Amino acid sequence: MKLGIYGYGNIGKGVELACSQNKDIELFGIFTRRDKSSVKSILGTKVYSADEVMDFKDKIDVLAICGGSATELPTMTPKLARDFNVIDTFDTHAKIPEHFHNVDKEAKESKHVALISCGWDPGMFSLNRLYANVLLPNGKDYTFWGRGISQGHSDAIRRIEGVLDAKQYTVPVESAVKRILDGEMPELTTRQKHIRECYVVVKDGYDKDEIEKKIKTMPNYFDEYDTIVNFVTLDELNKNHSGMPHAGFVIRTGTTGKDNEHKHTISYNLKLDSNPEFTAEALVSFSRALYKEYKRGTTGCLTVLDIRPKDLSINSYDELLKHTL
Amino acid sequence: MKLGIYGYGNIGKGVELACSQNKDIELFGIFTRRDKSSVKSILGTKVYSADEVMDFKDKIDVLAICGGSATELPTMTPKLARDFNVIDTFDTHAKIPEHFHNVDKEAKESKHVALISCGWDPGMFSLNRLYANVLLPNGKDYTFWGRGISQGHSDAIRRIEGVLDAKQYTVPVESAVKRILDGEMPELTTRQKHIRECYVVVKDGYDKDEIEKKIKTMPNYFDEYDTIVNFVTLDELNKNHSGMPHAGFVIRTGTTGKDNEHKHTISYNLKLDSNPEFTAEALVSFSRALYKEYKRGTTGCLTVLDIRPKDLSINSYDELLKHTL
Repeated sequence: MKLGIYGYGNIGKGVELACSQNKDIELFGIFTRRDKSSVKSILGTKVYSADEVMDFKDKIDVLAICGGSATELPTMTPKLARDFNVIDTFDTHAKIPEHFHNVDKEAKESKHVALISCGWDPGMFSLNRLYANVLLPNGKDYTFWGRGISQGHSDAIRRIEGVLDAKQYTVPVESAVKRILDGEMPELTTRQKHIRECYVVVKDGYDKDEIEKKIKTMPNYFDEYDTIVNFVTLDELNKNHSGMPHAGFVIRTGTTGKDNEHKHTISYNLKLDSNPEFTAEALVSFSRALYKEYKRGTTGCLTVLDIRPKDLSINSYDELLKHTL
Repeated sequence: MKLGIYGYGNIGKGVELACSQNKDIELFGIFTRRDKSSVKSILGTKVYSADEVMDFKDKIDVLAICGGSATELPTMTPKLARDFNVIDTFDTHAKIPEHFHNVDKEAKESKHVALISCGWDPGMFSLNRLYANVLLPNGKDYTFWGRGISQGHSDAIRRIEGVLDAKQYTVPVESAVKRILDGEMPELTTRQKHIRECYVVVKDGYDKDEIEKKIKTMPNYFDEYDTIVNFVTLDELNKNHSGMPHAGFVIRTGTTGKDNEHKHTISYNLKLDSNPEFTAEALVSFSRALYKEYKRGTTGCLTVLDIRPKDLSINSYDELLKHTL
């Protein structure tokens, strides 16, 4: 199958790299919204201008749309679903139903297939929430994120006057994770689940105490958390905090037995050196399954919850029976 | 949907209990191969004789076959697939392809649907091996079992002359698990992965040293492991080792990036107070999905790798989009 990359930011670059690990997937090309002559691909993949994508609508089997969830994907994915099978990483949880219905309408009308909200959360964490819930109907869910960079929180700090640059790590409270893994089912407040750890570069002439106070009291982003603010130089920030690691847990604890006397814990844990490259691996493997659905005649919008696990694999069903099951 | 239980051992009892946690599933009845007047169900479910099952072939939507993998399921599941939609927990990994083909043939001919090898391994661990492999094509798999009772190894000890009773715990080597969770990709021998911990009751007049030696040198079962033998009284065994806990990890570590510079770790961990009750929860939720496949017209044998995750849930797709994805 031939995959196209639409948008060449961190995730687009990750998709390019992920294709090189999947020998059944041929990378058709990269479509950029920047001046294409200014874009050099990592592995030498051909770069087109985003405007040219329509010229290849019968040549690309799945188009991986690698844009931002806030402003780009809500219009981009439904629009491109008119002419392509598409997959995206839309991750604004509260707006998933709306995005789903917009994409579904276009994909059904044009007889294409689409898959939204692929990645690790939403994505692999969603799958694990679902599996854990059906296995332990009588139980309680916990999702922890981190230790990892939150783009949204880093951006929020950067918008404060006097801040030159900043990175924010979301950090799960270890003692809370441990209690749950040990089978407890505590009720936890926002503060008891995550710590927010900030690395901030301040411009000359601004008051650090003032900026720290503004961060710690920022509504929604920081006020409900224990927040640690570390002031660093720009050099230190670039040297020590330029990676894009992330991590997280999905845990469900529950009970079975006549008197709920048996406790069970299911946990799924990711530890990622590169959030965008891992997300891209998910995009590429779900593209494989999506194209199989297209060939079966499926149309409309799907999510990871619709995909038969076997369709994700490059291996034959016989091999899966022998070596994976 | 109406579920029948065929075989009322530990897993059959677990299925009875699991049905009470799933309000869309009605338990039709229990079919026992013992004298039905001698069997009292935990929740008062009606008990029939196994011979009577054919009288209800149009009344039962899915029959959960709760027999042993060694001698019962290989003949029971294909035979019952002629008249019922069936699900089983067949767990002899090496014989899965053969069992699959036997069941598939009968189910296809009779236009029924079947699902074999449901549970946690094979089952949830298989799913996690598959997902982790597609997400990290360039990586390495590790499966650890324990701490938990191995029925097969306990039986092997009991067959030694002079042994009155015994329980064997499979225990993962903690330091090995830790290295892998930290992102290392070591090559591990059998001995480096699991310890075998035995609790043995010896009949009067037998030599404990002799029995310990026989256990530790038993081919396939113990000779490749570090084995710890503890001699206990029958009272101690019954008091401290009568539960059926189990646990385990599926871990995959892999790399992404142009020069494989980014390391990732995916781990799935189960900690179960009751192995059969958790297995039964899997049987019941996959029965729900299996019946949906039947209503779509699917026939033949399936495994957990064929099942769309959304079909496992009691919730509507709209609810899943809102709360699970």
